[in-house]
Amino acid sequence: MGHTTANKQQLINRVRRIAGQVEAIERSLMEEADCSVTLQRVAAARGAINGLMDEIVEDHLREHVAKPGLTDEQRAAGAEELVAVIRRYNK
Amino acid sequence: MGHTTANKQQLINRVRRIAGQVEAIERSLMEEADCSVTLQRVAAARGAINGLMDEIVEDHLREHVAKPGLTDEQRAAGAEELVAVIRRYNK
Amino acid sequence: MGHTTANKQQLINRVRRIAGQVEAIERSLMEEADCSVTLQRVAAARGAINGLMDEIVEDHLREHVAKPGLTDEQRAAGAEELVAVIRRYNK
Amino acid sequence: MGHTTANKQQLINRVRRIAGQVEAIERSLMEEADCSVTLQRVAAARGAINGLMDEIVEDHLREHVAKPGLTDEQRAAGAEELVAVIRRYNK
Repeated sequence: MGHTTANKQQLINRVRRIAGQVEAIERSLMEEADCSVTLQRVAAARGAINGLMDEIVEDHLREHVAKPGLTDEQRAAGAEELVAVIRRYNK
Repeated sequence: MGHTTANKQQLINRVRRIAGQVEAIERSLMEEADCSVTLQRVAAARGAINGLMDEIVEDHLREHVAKPGLTDEQRAAGAEELVAVIRRYNK
Repeated sequence: MGHTTANKQQLINRVRRIAGQVEAIERSLMEEADCSVTLQRVAAARGAINGLMDEIVEDHLREHVAKPGLTDEQRAAGAEELVAVIRRYNK
Repeated sequence: MGHTTANKQQLINRVRRIAGQVEAIERSLMEEADCSVTLQRVAAARGAINGLMDEIVEDHLREHVAKPGLTDEQRAAGAEELVAVIRRYNK
């Protein structure tokens, strides 16, 4: 992704926290926890993945569309990748 | 927005249809229509405005970030406008 | 909707503010305003309609599913109306 | 959650598939995969968790609000749990 190493590590840590949240959902289902606990855990994981999505979209926009020095073709390709993701998933 | 006249007219027509959908919500509230009718009308208007949002974001991305011939500063400004909108409203 | 008159008037006022926001989008398109103004207005209208949707869903849930005194059939019908709206529009 | 064993197992399988999707995001970051691959994987995981959220909300609505035989207090509590989740996360 052309990220700096620090930013990459930060993103990986963020994804690992989401993995932990998804595991907590599984645990609450297996342990027959109170349904409202499951509901809150799913909602929390969803919020976290929405935040991750926003960050990945922002990175992509800056690195693959706006960045100085890219060719017109690279910018067009980067923009169309974003458009495809918006169209398929944002509705 | 630097749109062609045809695209601009299309966007305006789309916004007018949404205005009609919002009026229909008001009517269903005033006429004390069945609650499920109101619910469906709000959901339909919401779907339509989400679609409009996606289209405006795509236009902005193409015209103000990816377009050949823009300066680095114009691209950076266009990208940050998108980031601001994503951060404020996408959650 | 079985709402009190005060709550109904509040909802209608809220819908009218959204109508005003949609008109502002149309104006910014017709006046060829700065694209970032249009973008912010669409995002604001979208936020407002999402908030309205949440309120209508909450009202429906309380009045047509949870309310004491409803029959089992009325509750089931109210719940399925919500499920239909969630399935069609939440993705 | 008062689910049948079959439905519970189905939900757990669904959560495990999401866990696999989150792992795939981590892998694409660690392997410095093409940014558009990461973007698509995040978008796919987000779609899957939105779908899970809708299913958990529907289950909660049917089992803890609409279900015949609940007390008025149980229904009110179940409805308010849903309202809290909608308010905190749906915006």
